[in-house]
Amino acid sequence: MNKNVLAVGIDIGGTNTVFGLVDYLGNCVSHDSIKTSHFELVEDFVDAVCLKLTKLIADQADAEIIGVGIGAPNGNYFSGNIEFAPNLNWKGIIPLSRLFEEQLNIPTTLTNDANAAALGERIYGAAKGVDNFVMVTLGTGLGSGFVVNGDLVYGHDGFAGELGHTIVEKNGRLCGCGRRGCLETYVSATGIVKSAKEFLKKSSNSSLSDLQFITSKSISDAAIAGDKLALEIFDFTAEKLGLSLANTIAISSPKLIVLFGGLAQSGDLLIKPTKKYLEEYVLSIYKNKIEIVSSKLNASDAAILGASALAWKH
Amino acid sequence: MNKNVLAVGIDIGGTNTVFGLVDYLGNCVSHDSIKTSHFELVEDFVDAVCLKLTKLIADQADAEIIGVGIGAPNGNYFSGNIEFAPNLNWKGIIPLSRLFEEQLNIPTTLTNDANAAALGERIYGAAKGVDNFVMVTLGTGLGSGFVVNGDLVYGHDGFAGELGHTIVEKNGRLCGCGRRGCLETYVSATGIVKSAKEFLKKSSNSSLSDLQFITSKSISDAAIAGDKLALEIFDFTAEKLGLSLANTIAISSPKLIVLFGGLAQSGDLLIKPTKKYLEEYVLSIYKNKIEIVSSKLNASDAAILGASALAWKH
Repeated sequence: MNKNVLAVGIDIGGTNTVFGLVDYLGNCVSHDSIKTSHFELVEDFVDAVCLKLTKLIADQADAEIIGVGIGAPNGNYFSGNIEFAPNLNWKGIIPLSRLFEEQLNIPTTLTNDANAAALGERIYGAAKGVDNFVMVTLGTGLGSGFVVNGDLVYGHDGFAGELGHTIVEKNGRLCGCGRRGCLETYVSATGIVKSAKEFLKKSSNSSLSDLQFITSKSISDAAIAGDKLALEIFDFTAEKLGLSLANTIAISSPKLIVLFGGLAQSGDLLIKPTKKYLEEYVLSIYKNKIEIVSSKLNASDAAILGASALAWKH
Repeated sequence: MNKNVLAVGIDIGGTNTVFGLVDYLGNCVSHDSIKTSHFELVEDFVDAVCLKLTKLIADQADAEIIGVGIGAPNGNYFSGNIEFAPNLNWKGIIPLSRLFEEQLNIPTTLTNDANAAALGERIYGAAKGVDNFVMVTLGTGLGSGFVVNGDLVYGHDGFAGELGHTIVEKNGRLCGCGRRGCLETYVSATGIVKSAKEFLKKSSNSSLSDLQFITSKSISDAAIAGDKLALEIFDFTAEKLGLSLANTIAISSPKLIVLFGGLAQSGDLLIKPTKKYLEEYVLSIYKNKIEIVSSKLNASDAAILGASALAWKH
């Protein structure tokens, strides 16, 4: 066998698209990126990515490319389409897998970004060899991927795994999806900023009250510095996540929950209180059985690794 | 192949145990029962069931018994044990599969009653050929079984599928499990009776107020007769179930939800408002995609069929 077997991983975000070549050990041997939001037409976007990708491939002597894996918002594994993604320029149903296959002539597999992240953790990261786990990605929103009996849960239509859109507060905060009280309105970079603003209305006794703009990063920084209000905001966030995970556990009884993304990087700041609330809320048969860990993947490569994992898995 | 190939199905309930022989078409060719609660010792119980079962088997000329499937509260598929079942006389960990195998010398598989019901629906009933569905059993409590990618979800420890113990009302009704606000404190035969008592405190304008004892059956009967308060109680119950199913769908995206048990037999009385609330609460990508149906299995045989399905599946 040719030793230089590689998979292509492409992670499409609303702002940036990153892509690269990954070996079976999870080393990202080369990578590049473009601005997703610059392309009004998806065909121009695919052309631009393929042009750069072809160069990356040509740079690898004797490389055999085993497949292309793409993680994208609202990516459907079964159809290979991006379907009605609110944060992309390309509206409606976009046959993304087919567009890449036609240009590259390499088998291409698509799923949503959180599912790709779950595969990345399973093949290269914190969930190596774990057949039942839940991946939670904390970015602008909250994404999730469920692995059951060793396989990703796609559901009957390819859209399973929307933990961010389970309702945790009836008549709670308005969500981008049009409903109220979704988990991601509380537990995400935007959710925690909303919480901070609510908390600051009641108390200005915090270093956060001096800031012109509050970000999830500034809340983390304040909490690390011991700011009491910032710690309360993390506790509030963790309570929502802990309850939601306790309910999730009662459904799929995972061995492990992996957190990924900006908020998860704050490590113990979020994980410790989340674990406390999870244990408080969870049914006794699951108590002290489930680990919560943050992603073991290098943050800058993780998105590419996750997408490439789809090609290896496929 | 011997045409008379049969599986044994045993369903263990807190009060009664029913068992019988089932062919591969789902016909229960013979059955019998004993009182579970009469047996202080599990060994005596197994002796009594095996004695009766051996007679049933001897009555079938040329019968080849392919396996024994058992559905039991807190039955663990991986270990073959009943583990800490609150409603049985036998406390702690009971190696039930092993006890039956030693007596009958037939491969024996155990799972909890709701998982067995899910397999029953998949092999013989409403979920034939459906690879992604949720089974909800409404009895004294609320049980559930999840089928994903064609397989039951057991989770990493064999205890997946406790939808009845997801928390739907923080600080809500006290549950038998010691926590508050579990779905089964609202949606179950006992839950709906609790609701009726609460509703009757506020209004006595109902045929239910004349009854000495209220049961889920009497609430159903009153609702069928058009009693307004009884219909409100069903609406209240359906709202809790609808929200919980909407959240469940966001996790596993099933094609179908099958309801089984006394409350589900009230058919449209529960299913119609549940579907209304489900569609109201569910994320738009799942809207009008998921069917809710009641079990297609003959109620008196269903428990045996479900348990026997485990033997066929195995």
